[in-house]
Amino acid sequence: MTFISDNFLLQSEAAVRLYHEFAAAQPIIDYHCHLPVKEIAEDRRFENLTQIWLAGDHYKWRAMRAAGVSEEYITGSASDWEKFQAWAETVPKTLRNPLYHWTHLELKRPFGIADKLLSPSTAKSIWDECNAKLQTPEFSARGIMRQMNVKLVCTTDDPIDSLEYHQEIRRQTADGNRGAAGLRPPVDDGSFDIQVLPTFRPDKAMQCAEPTGTGQVTYRSVKNYYEYLERLADVARNPILSFDDLLDALNKRHDYFHENGCRLSDHGFGRLSYSMSDDISQVESIFLRLRDINVIKETEVNILQAAGLRDIAIMNYNKQWTMQLHIGAMRNNNIRFFHKLGPDTGFDSMIDGNIAESLSNFFAALDSTNKLPKTIVYNLNPAWNDMLATLIGNFQDGKTPGKMQFGSGWWFLDQKDGMENQLKCLSNHGLLSLFVGMLTDSRSFLSYTRHEYFRRILCNLLGEDMKTGLIPMDYEMVGKMVGNICYYNAKNYFGFEL
Amino acid sequence: MTFISDNFLLQSEAAVRLYHEFAAAQPIIDYHCHLPVKEIAEDRRFENLTQIWLAGDHYKWRAMRAAGVSEEYITGSASDWEKFQAWAETVPKTLRNPLYHWTHLELKRPFGIADKLLSPSTAKSIWDECNAKLQTPEFSARGIMRQMNVKLVCTTDDPIDSLEYHQEIRRQTADGNRGAAGLRPPVDDGSFDIQVLPTFRPDKAMQCAEPTGTGQVTYRSVKNYYEYLERLADVARNPILSFDDLLDALNKRHDYFHENGCRLSDHGFGRLSYSMSDDISQVESIFLRLRDINVIKETEVNILQAAGLRDIAIMNYNKQWTMQLHIGAMRNNNIRFFHKLGPDTGFDSMIDGNIAESLSNFFAALDSTNKLPKTIVYNLNPAWNDMLATLIGNFQDGKTPGKMQFGSGWWFLDQKDGMENQLKCLSNHGLLSLFVGMLTDSRSFLSYTRHEYFRRILCNLLGEDMKTGLIPMDYEMVGKMVGNICYYNAKNYFGFEL
Amino acid sequence: MTFISDNFLLQSEAAVRLYHEFAAAQPIIDYHCHLPVKEIAEDRRFENLTQIWLAGDHYKWRAMRAAGVSEEYITGSASDWEKFQAWAETVPKTLRNPLYHWTHLELKRPFGIADKLLSPSTAKSIWDECNAKLQTPEFSARGIMRQMNVKLVCTTDDPIDSLEYHQEIRRQTADGNRGAAGLRPPVDDGSFDIQVLPTFRPDKAMQCAEPTGTGQVTYRSVKNYYEYLERLADVARNPILSFDDLLDALNKRHDYFHENGCRLSDHGFGRLSYSMSDDISQVESIFLRLRDINVIKETEVNILQAAGLRDIAIMNYNKQWTMQLHIGAMRNNNIRFFHKLGPDTGFDSMIDGNIAESLSNFFAALDSTNKLPKTIVYNLNPAWNDMLATLIGNFQDGKTPGKMQFGSGWWFLDQKDGMENQLKCLSNHGLLSLFVGMLTDSRSFLSYTRHEYFRRILCNLLGEDMKTGLIPMDYEMVGKMVGNICYYNAKNYFGFEL
Repeated sequence: MTFISDNFLLQSEAAVRLYHEFAAAQPIIDYHCHLPVKEIAEDRRFENLTQIWLAGDHYKWRAMRAAGVSEEYITGSASDWEKFQAWAETVPKTLRNPLYHWTHLELKRPFGIADKLLSPSTAKSIWDECNAKLQTPEFSARGIMRQMNVKLVCTTDDPIDSLEYHQEIRRQTADGNRGAAGLRPPVDDGSFDIQVLPTFRPDKAMQCAEPTGTGQVTYRSVKNYYEYLERLADVARNPILSFDDLLDALNKRHDYFHENGCRLSDHGFGRLSYSMSDDISQVESIFLRLRDINVIKETEVNILQAAGLRDIAIMNYNKQWTMQLHIGAMRNNNIRFFHKLGPDTGFDSMIDGNIAESLSNFFAALDSTNKLPKTIVYNLNPAWNDMLATLIGNFQDGKTPGKMQFGSGWWFLDQKDGMENQLKCLSNHGLLSLFVGMLTDSRSFLSYTRHEYFRRILCNLLGEDMKTGLIPMDYEMVGKMVGNICYYNAKNYFGFEL
Repeated sequence: MTFISDNFLLQSEAAVRLYHEFAAAQPIIDYHCHLPVKEIAEDRRFENLTQIWLAGDHYKWRAMRAAGVSEEYITGSASDWEKFQAWAETVPKTLRNPLYHWTHLELKRPFGIADKLLSPSTAKSIWDECNAKLQTPEFSARGIMRQMNVKLVCTTDDPIDSLEYHQEIRRQTADGNRGAAGLRPPVDDGSFDIQVLPTFRPDKAMQCAEPTGTGQVTYRSVKNYYEYLERLADVARNPILSFDDLLDALNKRHDYFHENGCRLSDHGFGRLSYSMSDDISQVESIFLRLRDINVIKETEVNILQAAGLRDIAIMNYNKQWTMQLHIGAMRNNNIRFFHKLGPDTGFDSMIDGNIAESLSNFFAALDSTNKLPKTIVYNLNPAWNDMLATLIGNFQDGKTPGKMQFGSGWWFLDQKDGMENQLKCLSNHGLLSLFVGMLTDSRSFLSYTRHEYFRRILCNLLGEDMKTGLIPMDYEMVGKMVGNICYYNAKNYFGFEL
Repeated sequence: MTFISDNFLLQSEAAVRLYHEFAAAQPIIDYHCHLPVKEIAEDRRFENLTQIWLAGDHYKWRAMRAAGVSEEYITGSASDWEKFQAWAETVPKTLRNPLYHWTHLELKRPFGIADKLLSPSTAKSIWDECNAKLQTPEFSARGIMRQMNVKLVCTTDDPIDSLEYHQEIRRQTADGNRGAAGLRPPVDDGSFDIQVLPTFRPDKAMQCAEPTGTGQVTYRSVKNYYEYLERLADVARNPILSFDDLLDALNKRHDYFHENGCRLSDHGFGRLSYSMSDDISQVESIFLRLRDINVIKETEVNILQAAGLRDIAIMNYNKQWTMQLHIGAMRNNNIRFFHKLGPDTGFDSMIDGNIAESLSNFFAALDSTNKLPKTIVYNLNPAWNDMLATLIGNFQDGKTPGKMQFGSGWWFLDQKDGMENQLKCLSNHGLLSLFVGMLTDSRSFLSYTRHEYFRRILCNLLGEDMKTGLIPMDYEMVGKMVGNICYYNAKNYFGFEL
């Protein structure tokens, strides 16, 4: 029996109908991802399955380490085939982990492999079949995006980024759409009409110091910070001698991103230690002291970061952008591997502690001057789910429908239980019907089946509700909601031109 | 097909039998609500559905704001019909939110409308039908309470309240029951035999200052506090010049409430920052300093509040009252709307943080002198559910069965998932069989179907257990437990005369 | 109908097959319990059901207190029969509490009573039947362990314990296995081949002071602590005049335990306030100050405890032991009963608060020098489950498969919902397939059906997954995983010789 069958995850007749009639055919708006835009611009072809599937995938790396696979076969010097073998040995051990579903969803789409489960005994045939397909145009970066019915993606970019590849894609797209004879990218047939927009992620401009938990700051980070500020000043053509200069530079880049189609910002932090100072001279004095003597207190770091975040939020509001907050990660926890492999290599987890008051005060300060932008809060620690879903409800303003969004299950929560919990929290404490839905948050061109996964879970939940009488057995009403959550809500909320 | 059918929420044959045979016919003891007692005394008739259903209902207001409805149609100057239209437009967007269930449960009972779902297309006919019924005696305040089989309600009252309306209702009831020819309220036929008892809620007497999170207190609150104390001193005929005077005044009102049938106190706080001082001179010195110079530290606020709460708890113990603690709310978070609309208008949410040690120390201090009253803890943040359910178990004393109660899902948790979680936590960590069950906590005369909602959920849970063999398939045993949780446990626990 | 039927908890055909074909026959490795080893050595016979079932069982005591049973019938002077009667009256009130399942599972195995539910009406017949069986050799301590197919148990022992009873059991076992004519224990037939190994639990060596929450330490604890250190110094033949001496003494006992077959350590704390000092002179100075003037700060207590825990962890690493951390308990919360009955009498609950950073820093410090031992984290507060399951994943090292284990539902979470949550968290954030599975953590010889309970729950979960297509319908693959989780993973992980 096929594991990923047509009705995978769909446990009721109603779920089957909702998915196939209202969800499956919807295009994909992937409004938050980490795709390398250069690879889209150049329409990268991938040499083999390890290159497109394992390289950079710290989810898989974690599982392999837990299974006792040596680092050599994960990030080390082993050959691509050896690494794939190690992964194939690990897969059967991931039963009940989301990786087991993701793996076989991705083998089915786009690779069309639905009759095999990945394991040591199937590794060679899957390797060969996928690698052969990867050599065809349908499996280039753009080919996959087309196959998966993607209409628009938003990448994640630093304010200092030139956005040259976004511009190049736009030029190509415009030419292609006109059928113009102009400069064509060598690997594209000119018909590429998927929008690739940047996202403004200014975290580095705010990470003036890493709190150490002891009330001091780490010097290394401070040094890196000033190198970053110099680059920012260069790019913005705006010397940064004060905190106000920093904001000016960011504002110029914000303008530049806007001109390049950007409509979202993105911000990551563990707990938001929101400590707002309305005294701009205090903020300036902290900034200068940090610059001059490299030592400030954690509370002062919080003041700087809060001031910066507030001002960027106001920029967002003024341009009708959406602000994304990714809350609850505790990063780089394994010192040994951090020194060896750097960040984003599989050693991050959830943070705990208090955020309700800080986050609420942050929103209230913006709202009180009518400058709170549309906001999506993504939460990593599910113990905060109910609290956050109610908190953001305090700032719905009766103007923008669904203005404050409780974002889809993020990172470790991007799995069936996590997504169902998010959908239930949102349903219980807000309006599911206005939800902007799924995003991949992924670095990989193979992650688009996450949208399929989400849609199946959504339809299964609603189908079960219909079956058990929790919601009316009205396919028109419920099906319309499904379509909205899969596509139309995002289209309208972000104001994309599609 | 009817949405709210006879077997709504009842997913098994066992659930159906449990509900219809053991739960449905039980009378209602609503031992905690916020009904306006004046309206019961005067047997208010409601002009239209907006007056009885939307006015003051901040649950609905939140949903409307989230849906993008302008404040004019929520709390503003729009006509009642326009407001109802705006609500009817919002309802289909609340699918999966508890409002969708509550709305249609309330239309079915008492209004008898089960064949329509509220939406723009049905708004007018529902408006007309309900308004017509509201003109009949069966739909006065008392009429509705009778229709819903209510036997007793406990309102929520400030210590300075005269309780005149409670007294008037008691007089009327006594007359009515005697069939006396005495003074009858104009709108009542004399047969009103529903007990309406007050509850002692002294929060304002303890809110000497609002912590601001910065270690200081807000002055505005302090000023309001002293105005409140003056009114309390007047009513109690007990000048308040010291903390001890304050307790004396409260004790007099506690006596007065007892004479008027009160058997419960109620207390709300976010986190209990319990910081007990046995040094009464320290408490007095803080109280006086607050009075004289209007500035004390947060830790001192905590000491005052803890001392006050402890002494009221002892008053409760001495009179065999039950103490209700509502824990976990973070209130008035939207500054802009708070200034515009005041409290209780839909801008509250859950707090997070630590309470285990504080709450445990509070109970332990009372228990150590054998003065811990019967207590119900209602919790707003479900992340605390398991912790709280185990914590209160440390203070069961082998004297009063079910002395320490883990209260039913409160506020944002008063929905299917929230109630099921509460029932599961209570089951796993305590004795569900001794649970005092449901309460509306509502300001509306239309909320009594919350009891029906709870009973269906309870019976569905137990029916599923019977079906799957988690509990014996013994209707007598399980049915008796259902009856106890719906009615008899509350009757016995609170010591009501029924 | 039999309540505990052959297919109790098994809701699908797949669950039934998984349990009966792959789980039921597996032997038991109970790698963490609190059995009194003396009673195994002496092969205790139990006078009656109260002695073996109620004495020391604080789970039951809590339920009885909640039900309003007087302490006289719980820990007081009532007769064993009266206490059993009081328990029989309480049992029907525990419906939906795990006690209801445990009670009837234990009556079925080993007592063979499956046709009755314990209640006042069946109390006498159950009492008589069980007491009669308790007089037979099959129901001695060892007889029960044999009946339950136990292969190995790890008791929990203080470093100062002589381990004389473990040695005696080993001598008896060796003799028995050889069929030797040597000294036989009077009550054993020589065939006892169940391994009984000690576990190193050095909590008392670290509890230098009880934090009071006010920044001071309690003096009583300090005094007890030094009495304890004197006994430890005696047993280890190593005077303890410094912190370094303390570690030397512990190391000697660690060696001694290892010689006696110990392969695990165990450590309990509420929140780990991890505050590491690499400055050994600072640690020494705190230790001496505590000794000399009996007052140190809470932060200094944390430094001492962290230093001690780290060094014991390193001892564990060096001997390839497994370190068990029991996190999240708040103990002895009822002062009145603590003074009357002492610890472990039913007045403990879950703690809340932050532990992510502390625990992560602890693991990182050990890992950074390659000295992090195999570790099992048992968690009491389910609000921490997801966070902890991701946190431990940061320290999987690609060497030992499943090195960092998220332990089975502990204490209040040792029930169906709690175990299912643990299994789901582990599945979502780690590798369920490598899970070392269940343990009783019990003081009672009757608790082995907890393993059966766990196995049924595990098989039910996996069977439901197979039925609904969440995992492949492959009995060989899933069944093998079941067998591993029930027995082989523990065997291999701990390195037991079986």
